[in-house]
Amino acid sequence: MVHEGAALYIAFEGGEGSGKSTQARLLAERLGARITHEPGGTDLGVKLRKLLLGVGESPVGSRAETLLMAADRAQHMVEVVGPTLAGGQHVVSDRTAYSSLAYQGGGRNLGVDDVRAVNDWALDGLWPDLVVLLDCERSATNTRLDRALDRLEAEESAFHDRVRSTFLALAADDRDHWVVIDGAGTIDEVASQVWEAVQARVAGGEVR
Amino acid sequence: MVHEGAALYIAFEGGEGSGKSTQARLLAERLGARITHEPGGTDLGVKLRKLLLGVGESPVGSRAETLLMAADRAQHMVEVVGPTLAGGQHVVSDRTAYSSLAYQGGGRNLGVDDVRAVNDWALDGLWPDLVVLLDCERSATNTRLDRALDRLEAEESAFHDRVRSTFLALAADDRDHWVVIDGAGTIDEVASQVWEAVQARVAGGEVR
Repeated sequence: MVHEGAALYIAFEGGEGSGKSTQARLLAERLGARITHEPGGTDLGVKLRKLLLGVGESPVGSRAETLLMAADRAQHMVEVVGPTLAGGQHVVSDRTAYSSLAYQGGGRNLGVDDVRAVNDWALDGLWPDLVVLLDCERSATNTRLDRALDRLEAEESAFHDRVRSTFLALAADDRDHWVVIDGAGTIDEVASQVWEAVQARVAGGEVR
Repeated sequence: MVHEGAALYIAFEGGEGSGKSTQARLLAERLGARITHEPGGTDLGVKLRKLLLGVGESPVGSRAETLLMAADRAQHMVEVVGPTLAGGQHVVSDRTAYSSLAYQGGGRNLGVDDVRAVNDWALDGLWPDLVVLLDCERSATNTRLDRALDRLEAEESAFHDRVRSTFLALAADDRDHWVVIDGAGTIDEVASQVWEAVQARVAGGEVR
């Protein structure tokens, strides 16, 4: 289910370096939305993000990784997303539980349905109203990352191919909530397409 | 399901101060079992235990708490319990996922079935062969705790009543795997009853 109410919960999803953070920020500014991100959008999340993404920490199993991510998402929902929506403000989140479906469900082969069930419980059933998937060929995204790769980013190419195909399958299976935008354009080009998609998805062509 | 194989996976469960740790250690010595505990039986678990039990940390929501506990249990399974059993050695664990069913499912009113589902996924379906529940009246256990209470221990009395009744209900619903022992006896008395229960549960009266 998605939440009931006037405020919109909008997710940006996609692979590493697809331009999500930039586009999420631009859309949030235009909408007057609260901008946030997962993992790490809460105090607890910052600590979990460090555990999860730190290179050199003791290895974390894939189920434990999924559950830590889900804990981050649960806390983010009760501490940030839920209260903001309840207060009538739109929320734009750079990644949401859908990233777990793609990264742990698809990328780590744990199964999208199982990971969805765990996250549905974590979120108490509250999923985004609109998911903007910024899709990129891996070769295009690699050139945007000019910094050191963290543990997830450094995973092998086959992993990222599974992540991408899982995102695309999620979008294809739920066209009411997902829109796929080619992330290879310029920042302005992508921002225009994002804005168009947001307008098209809300009643009367205007953002509520 | 429980695991297949010659080595036994034995859980000690019960409220705070019920004598679990002492009895788990005594049984492990007698069996030549590996003694371990949850939460905190792995490097990851030590960090999570600190997040979970620390007084003064920012408040963790009940679903996030459950998922962090489940992450701890998932890591403990793949890093400690599973490999030890696969190597043919018995495992005795001071608390297991059943504590989550009682504390988060019952104590925090999240529902035993939902918390069981999350943990079943965390453990990839591997639950203890035998669960020893050391049951105590709350008044009896309070006198054993002569140190400062951590966050969970400090929860209100109604919480602990729900935990206790959930443990008792789990035991009543699964008599093949659970045994309930009155934790109010002396250490030797309880240890004798534990040993008797372990012997009675294994084929031919002898521990495999």
